[in-house]
Amino acid sequence: MEKEKENGREAIENDIIEGRNAVIEALRAGRAIDKIFIAKGDVDKTLGHIASKAREQGVVVVEADRRKLDFMSRAKAHQGVIALVALQEYCEIKDILAVAQERNEPPFVIVCDEISDPHNLGAIIRSAECVGAHGVVIPKRRSAGLTAIVGKASAGAAEYMAIARVANISAAIKELKEAGLWVYGTAADGASGLWTTDLTGPIALVIGSEGDGMSRLVRESCDFVLSLPMKGKLNSLNASAAAAVTMYEVLRQRSIVVS
Amino acid sequence: MEKEKENGREAIENDIIEGRNAVIEALRAGRAIDKIFIAKGDVDKTLGHIASKAREQGVVVVEADRRKLDFMSRAKAHQGVIALVALQEYCEIKDILAVAQERNEPPFVIVCDEISDPHNLGAIIRSAECVGAHGVVIPKRRSAGLTAIVGKASAGAAEYMAIARVANISAAIKELKEAGLWVYGTAADGASGLWTTDLTGPIALVIGSEGDGMSRLVRESCDFVLSLPMKGKLNSLNASAAAAVTMYEVLRQRSIVVS
Repeated sequence: MEKEKENGREAIENDIIEGRNAVIEALRAGRAIDKIFIAKGDVDKTLGHIASKAREQGVVVVEADRRKLDFMSRAKAHQGVIALVALQEYCEIKDILAVAQERNEPPFVIVCDEISDPHNLGAIIRSAECVGAHGVVIPKRRSAGLTAIVGKASAGAAEYMAIARVANISAAIKELKEAGLWVYGTAADGASGLWTTDLTGPIALVIGSEGDGMSRLVRESCDFVLSLPMKGKLNSLNASAAAAVTMYEVLRQRSIVVS
Repeated sequence: MEKEKENGREAIENDIIEGRNAVIEALRAGRAIDKIFIAKGDVDKTLGHIASKAREQGVVVVEADRRKLDFMSRAKAHQGVIALVALQEYCEIKDILAVAQERNEPPFVIVCDEISDPHNLGAIIRSAECVGAHGVVIPKRRSAGLTAIVGKASAGAAEYMAIARVANISAAIKELKEAGLWVYGTAADGASGLWTTDLTGPIALVIGSEGDGMSRLVRESCDFVLSLPMKGKLNSLNASAAAAVTMYEVLRQRSIVVS
């Protein structure tokens, strides 16, 4: 429910394309589309064609209530289909690694495991840009996409960052490991202390979702799980605050090594 | 405009008291009230009485458009006056210092200079609780109050923290200095490096507003102005992210001293 609401609210302030012909045109032109919503139960031949065309291009297709489409619609002429346009093109993991190589720095990649709040995702991208990370990886599903709200919350950082959108976070982590990166997760009960763990090498930092943290599979694929010191009654920070604290610790340790 | 909208939205999800008798009763009972909105132009004898009664008790009174009141109202019976109820009682600065003394720790106080976004304020309170800070100071005006949204965004931390609400942040800083605290501001062009400045003593950390940072007066009353290292094109983090990074650096330095 929470996620549904979030997506709906997001869509309102977002660039959307509605109506059958408009969406077909956008797919044909190869525009970066984040997600396509199709009215549940109404899937006739044309909508079926749009759905399969979209899936071919790797776009996520979601069946939604007609009421939700009505709510998202601006022109009130969605004809059962609305596409959410992405703020910019996504890149691939190899492009992120190329940025690191270009700058002649050990790779520093942020992996977001299902951050659903666009304000959190935007703030994480902003922090990643500020610490000089080389890119951000987000999953296609159960995550905010690179929408206008995320762009705004990132204070423009999204435009400067290489952002890869992947079908599967575990597979992405595997790819990063094969490229020589160490993968550090974060969790309340992580075994590695933030300040006592060496974070100076090639590194991928995994940020867990707001509610549940990292999923089990993702956690198991981490080389280390960091925990932030907690001195109060709570056992976790806001996801984007935890991300910023951890990223700055990477930067601090790297600065000491360099100086 | 931005702030108006924010307040309006906030009010909807908030505990509000509407109508003349209800608000008079709340004031009489000494309930913690964040702010009272009175319809602009409609100030008759009763509303004037409410306003002066409120001001006597130190409650901020704001003149608002009747349309805004209509928008905030739930019962649609506001009669020109709506009070925003605070989530909990505010304390005073001396109470925050007493918490530090009780714990036998050098004071660690967070001062929020006009944080208007309730999600940011909530996240800052949450981070403050996690690093074991002794309290948070917020101004009465041009700041989110301790409302239900702030409480939720703080993940419950607001309940555990001593939170003081002051008429004037500069005066509050003066009071903290007189109690022996060093006051550290944060700004993009601050002269003191985050990692090279000693943060182990009794400390008040001033967090500037989302848009403009600290006001000039507040900045001038800081002993030091810290700057966070920035490696990208942007020159600032999100306010709550910057607050978290700085608070954790205080905690890190203090841990080294203790160990």
